[in-house]
Amino acid sequence: MITEAAARIIEQVREQRPLIHCITNYITSNDCANILLSFGASPAMCDAWDEAYDFARISAALYINFGTYIKEQEAAAVEASLGAKAAGRPIVLDPVGCGAIKRRIPILDHLHEVAGIAIIKGNMGEIMALAGKDAPVKGVDSGAEVPGIEEAVMGLASRYRCVVAATGKVDVVSDGTRLARIANGVELLTRLTGAGCMVGALCGATAAAACQSGGDLFTAAIAAIAAMGIAGELAFEKAQLPGSFRVALMDSIYGIRGDSLSQRGKIQC
Amino acid sequence: MITEAAARIIEQVREQRPLIHCITNYITSNDCANILLSFGASPAMCDAWDEAYDFARISAALYINFGTYIKEQEAAAVEASLGAKAAGRPIVLDPVGCGAIKRRIPILDHLHEVAGIAIIKGNMGEIMALAGKDAPVKGVDSGAEVPGIEEAVMGLASRYRCVVAATGKVDVVSDGTRLARIANGVELLTRLTGAGCMVGALCGATAAAACQSGGDLFTAAIAAIAAMGIAGELAFEKAQLPGSFRVALMDSIYGIRGDSLSQRGKIQC
Amino acid sequence: MITEAAARIIEQVREQRPLIHCITNYITSNDCANILLSFGASPAMCDAWDEAYDFARISAALYINFGTYIKEQEAAAVEASLGAKAAGRPIVLDPVGCGAIKRRIPILDHLHEVAGIAIIKGNMGEIMALAGKDAPVKGVDSGAEVPGIEEAVMGLASRYRCVVAATGKVDVVSDGTRLARIANGVELLTRLTGAGCMVGALCGATAAAACQSGGDLFTAAIAAIAAMGIAGELAFEKAQLPGSFRVALMDSIYGIRGDSLSQRGKIQC
Repeated sequence: MITEAAARIIEQVREQRPLIHCITNYITSNDCANILLSFGASPAMCDAWDEAYDFARISAALYINFGTYIKEQEAAAVEASLGAKAAGRPIVLDPVGCGAIKRRIPILDHLHEVAGIAIIKGNMGEIMALAGKDAPVKGVDSGAEVPGIEEAVMGLASRYRCVVAATGKVDVVSDGTRLARIANGVELLTRLTGAGCMVGALCGATAAAACQSGGDLFTAAIAAIAAMGIAGELAFEKAQLPGSFRVALMDSIYGIRGDSLSQRGKIQC
Repeated sequence: MITEAAARIIEQVREQRPLIHCITNYITSNDCANILLSFGASPAMCDAWDEAYDFARISAALYINFGTYIKEQEAAAVEASLGAKAAGRPIVLDPVGCGAIKRRIPILDHLHEVAGIAIIKGNMGEIMALAGKDAPVKGVDSGAEVPGIEEAVMGLASRYRCVVAATGKVDVVSDGTRLARIANGVELLTRLTGAGCMVGALCGATAAAACQSGGDLFTAAIAAIAAMGIAGELAFEKAQLPGSFRVALMDSIYGIRGDSLSQRGKIQC
Repeated sequence: MITEAAARIIEQVREQRPLIHCITNYITSNDCANILLSFGASPAMCDAWDEAYDFARISAALYINFGTYIKEQEAAAVEASLGAKAAGRPIVLDPVGCGAIKRRIPILDHLHEVAGIAIIKGNMGEIMALAGKDAPVKGVDSGAEVPGIEEAVMGLASRYRCVVAATGKVDVVSDGTRLARIANGVELLTRLTGAGCMVGALCGATAAAACQSGGDLFTAAIAAIAAMGIAGELAFEKAQLPGSFRVALMDSIYGIRGDSLSQRGKIQC
């Protein structure tokens, strides 16, 4: 049932073509823009601090990524969050590196306090750090299984009253009440920069679609994460080396439809 | 005749290998750099505000793109424009997002006032916004046909005394007197981030070549836009999915010569 | 013997998976991140100025690239260099554009004075400019042979008491005493943006591995440069056009091992 609901959100993204305002790092912003286009959404990066408030108001969702968070982005993210709140748009936050760089946690808290975050999506190490637990973290590409991750995800979802997703070998998503596990994906995704950022951007697209259709943000996060995992599997069937795999991943996302989730989704709720 | 003149400019780019100073957004800057290299030009991004004036003076053209226009870029663009003016180099301006973000229009006006813009290139929505007309605009990737676009392009070219180009299904270019339509290109270019930015960067290369050869900026804009459209067509023959198409596009531009325009250009003047 | 030592460093990178802190330009940062991942290292870009000191301390090496050196990066690079020095990590510096933009030379000198640079890697034009010699320079992609380059490299290595590498048709590396020439690579690498930046990032990875294993930075620079050249040769066997070549390059780096250097390295010392 959750799979069917997630499949519908995938279709709604292609019908609505939501404009996703991204404030994200410069390393993977091209990948985020291209994957949103291939997914049927419309990306727009806008992080001049005095443009961000108004731009967030005309967008369907706001995606904030802490990857390379220079001062003007930090100010722009506050402005954009206030704009998104004023217009009733969902905010998706990707606290990249918050395990290694502790000041990023109070930055997240501030954004949450002033505007309310709809979905927090991080890797296992980042989510454990947010939960105040130690976890093996190496840079931004931590991907190993982590004991206690389900409790951490559920606890954070309750504390922040939002959806929390931790991506890894098996992804974990919770809204504080429900908990889902998603087992799609391939190892090679961890050898590509920006796989996590791209999932976050896709969460922006599904959150936008869910909000416009009276849908559910828990399901929206699941839809985005499963879509990425399935696209990764399809890409890996075509290419097993990272350069070709990246190209195949963009090709695969372009073909993802609701049916793809119904047929290949490994979602347990 | 315009096609032959445009074809000559394509050849001149490869002969002169002009250095194109780009102040552009971080999302598609890699694509802009790579397409300039494949086109035979030499790209250099330089947007530290205190380096931009001198760097523009040693470059053959300046390309400014408003995509992610943080404050230091805004200052750097003024400095670079003054440097380009002092050295007699053409300035190509891409007013990305000026339909959605109104403050970008006075920024364009200021640059034009202090340094003089040679070519303004935008998509249909941006050009309509510059002309003070309402148009359906969605983010930065608006591509639909727009009634009144030809009058808007011609009117803006007269007002700014420069070449104005609006890209879309059929591209429209004017210098205030002449008007050209270019019907090359494929739909899939609109599903790729940065197609518009890449056209703008190529306009920088053709403008540089035209200036050094006593050529004409109207023809230069046509040459760049037609080259991109033809490269898109050639790429689409090889790849119909966005990831592979993007790779094929870079491959195709590498093979574009003056002959490509003579043989495949759909330019009506 | 140098080839075998370099081959060992390549293996050590894959064993240690060092975290490389990069402060680099936004044009090629995605390429740098992906090539580090394919090479077996773990990249992390962090250039918020107040995060850079602590982040450098937990990284295994610091790579600084002057490509688009906005003010916050300039401050972040000083902070990161101090952090790297405090933690005993090697600093690799890529003085992009220092031939055309003279103020970048005192910026390099300042970083060297406060923290000590381990490896300076530039193209021929940049290294000649650092050595105070005139050389034909065009933008950032100068690649031609330059008379006097060996003296310049050796002289700079003595002056800065570090390893200096000049990349070009035949790369030249010196530590002030020894001098190596590396003849791997293909012409098409010069038609790709970021080839030089990627070599610099790989130098960060090999420098990290060498430092952790009591190895030698001269050998580390040779290992990175030869690996890139060999990957370029392997890629060119698969693809002769720039878009496809770039994809093949990422695929090729993924397969580079110590053996690749033993079998194909053209290193003369």
